[in-house]
Formats: sequence, structure tokens, C-alpha cells
Amino acid sequence: MFYLTNFLVKSLIQPIQYLIVVFFMIEINKSTIASWDRFYRANFINSLSGFKSVSLIGTKSKDGIPNLAIFSNIVHLGADPAMIGFINRPKAAAPDTIRNIEDTSIYTMNHIHPGMIQQAHQTSAKYDASVNEFEAVGLDMLWRHDCAAPFVKDSYIQYQLSLSDIIPIPSNGTFLVTGYIESVYLKEDYREPDGFLPLDQYQSVTSLGIDGYYQTEKIVRLPYARP
Amino acid sequence: MFYLTNFLVKSLIQPIQYLIVVFFMIEINKSTIASWDRFYRANFINSLSGFKSVSLIGTKSKDGIPNLAIFSNIVHLGADPAMIGFINRPKAAAPDTIRNIEDTSIYTMNHIHPGMIQQAHQTSAKYDASVNEFEAVGLDMLWRHDCAAPFVKDSYIQYQLSLSDIIPIPSNGTFLVTGYIESVYLKEDYREPDGFLPLDQYQSVTSLGIDGYYQTEKIVRLPYARP
Repeated sequence: MFYLTNFLVKSLIQPIQYLIVVFFMIEINKSTIASWDRFYRANFINSLSGFKSVSLIGTKSKDGIPNLAIFSNIVHLGADPAMIGFINRPKAAAPDTIRNIEDTSIYTMNHIHPGMIQQAHQTSAKYDASVNEFEAVGLDMLWRHDCAAPFVKDSYIQYQLSLSDIIPIPSNGTFLVTGYIESVYLKEDYREPDGFLPLDQYQSVTSLGIDGYYQTEKIVRLPYARP
Repeated sequence: MFYLTNFLVKSLIQPIQYLIVVFFMIEINKSTIASWDRFYRANFINSLSGFKSVSLIGTKSKDGIPNLAIFSNIVHLGADPAMIGFINRPKAAAPDTIRNIEDTSIYTMNHIHPGMIQQAHQTSAKYDASVNEFEAVGLDMLWRHDCAAPFVKDSYIQYQLSLSDIIPIPSNGTFLVTGYIESVYLKEDYREPDGFLPLDQYQSVTSLGIDGYYQTEKIVRLPYARP
């Protein structure tokens, strides 16, 4: 009886399950994606890869003009030395932040809480290089004596970086900008005993696609996995 | 009266506000971070940069051994052509996925929902290259006829990529792996009319730090920003 059941599962039920999974999923291939209207494609592809680490990057041009822009493709690169990277679009599309970092090597990253989403999103508008986005969108600058770039005063988590490398991504003209963490500023000390920062308590939002903003709720922290 | 108030605000209240913000924030500098125990530092720095696009990457070695590993530093690179990148740690620390991609050029990304967090996290254990992590952690493989790499059957959003470039990051031995999206599979069609994928409806989780998993709730989608 066991063998019969086992035989039935292996020979009948598993292939049927497979067919159900494969045929009932919506399949979208490369040529369909290429055929879409560019706004539809941008919304779909930008959201496909998942929720993003959205932050505001503050810089100052060599002529002294402050700049603020929202970036959502931010990666952790390493903890020792502490390094973070972000993707900058091609220079023709997003010239100011990357040029200021090239010129000054200093920039700040500032988390976004729900009370500042409107202003943060507005920094994505294509302002002229002569415009100070802090003033244009209505966010206060915070200058610290040892940092040439402005912080966002109302941000609950702020940190300063110094440029490591600007790495061109050959396939599409984007750049990976990597930097060293110089200092970190926290509005409240919610650190857990092992150093973990519960960003939900800081109300840091995550972004999705080009224009979606989400809050989070913790499901679980899991222990270090061993084989 | 207006001028007096204005004078008082400018000369007294703003500097006091500034001092309150600056002095009441917790400041952590580079040398403090370098002095921390490495686990404390890893937890802190990994969570500092924000919520992450966590997914499972499926590959197959040239000897035919399937591999599955969790990655959380995933970036959107461009929509036309549709490209996604991820950060791979130094090869000594995380050798299998990057080697399989180098050898075969094909890999899959698979979103994680709350019902598979335990198994997904367990793929971060350092299994020997001879181990099939799908079997080790208890996730079913799904093979599609036109893809040499396995998908995660239970994943609600799955997509196939072909390698574009493996770009070394000079400062710390990590790599940015970039790839082209070949095809996308959705368990349900929750696409919004403009192509946006509401990942909260797919129950896709976001990760924080090394070991934190979060669910999300939409706050808002905002219109395209203009100056």
C-alpha cells in the first residue's frame, strides 16, 4: 500500500502539481517587456526587483550650491571598512549629485520618514543645477562643522560619507558610487543590544518602483544559519 | 512688531533649534565604528543603509549541482534594456553563486513570502559546493524547459536573468553582478494599470540587516515630480 501510494505520488501527482504551477503563472518574456510603452515598462521593471533603501543624498557643488536628491538603489558593501554604495543614473539624466561628489568627495545620506515623503519625492524633479533643492522643496539644511555637505535637519538617521570609487557600469551608462561611512547621527537611540538598528522604530520608509512609499512591520529576526 | 518677531526668530530661536538638533542627536564616528566588536559592527552597518530587496538566487553548477542562496543587496539598473544587479561578497566568503553564474551565464531570482522566510534564511548557511540547498533547506525546485537554472516553486514572483557583467569593486573585494531580465513569472496578476507591481499584495518581504525580515504596508504613490 505504501509503495502504491508512493508510486502514485511520484508518477501522477507531482507532474500534475508541476503543470499547475507552470501553466497557471503569468509569463512575461523579454520581447513583451521590450514592446511595452516606456512608462509601463519603467513602472514594472522598477518594482520587480523589490523594496528599496530610499534616502536623500545631500551634496554641495564646488561653487557652493547645496543639492538634495532622492536615491533608492542603495547597497551595503561591507562593514569593515564600513562602506555603502548607490546607483546613479547616466550623467545626462542625473548630473548634479555625481558631479558634486566627484568634485568634493563628501556627501550625506538621510533617511526619510512619513512626514517628509512629499518633499523627498519632489527632489526627483529635474531642477537646474543652480537651484538649491532644500529651498525648492521645503526641507531645512543642517550643516555640521566637520562636513562640507548639508544634512537634512528633519531626518531621524543621517550619515556622512567620503567617496571611494565611481565605477561605470558598461551595459547602460549608469554608475555605482561607493563610499566610506565617516559618521552617523541618530535622533533617538533605538539600537538593539547587538547593534541592530530597528528602522521601523525610526519610521524609515522603503520605496517601491519609481513613486511608491511603504512603511514596514517586523516579522522576525532569525539566528545565524549553520549547515 | 512683525520685524521684532522676525528678528527674534532669526537671531535667537533658529540657532537654539540648531543646537538642539545637533547636540541631542547621538553621534557615532568612524573610529568608534572601527572599535566595535565585529558582530555588533556588522549588525549596525548592515541595517544603517535601509530596508533591502531580498530574494533567492537559483543557479546550477557546470557539474549539474543546483544552488540556492539568499541575497539582499539587489538594485534596479535600468528598464530598457531591463537590467538588475546584485552585490556578491568576496569569493572566499560566498563562492558558489558567482562561480555558477560565471560558468553558465544563467540565474533566477525568486521573491520571498512570509511562509518561506525560515527556509530562505537557512540558505545563508555555508553549505559545501556539493550540497543542493533546495534539498538542504526544504524548498522545491521548479525547472522550466528554456532555463538552465532552477526557480523556487513556491515563490510568487520569479524571474530569469542572463549575465551581463561581473564588475569587481576595488575597495573591498566585493562584486556587482549585472544581468538582463529574460522572463518574468507571476503567481497572480496584481499589476496596476500603469505596470506597477504592488509587492505588498504578493506578500514579498523586505529584509533589514543580516537577519531581519519585514512586511510592508503602502503609504502612498506620488505623481511624477516637476520643478
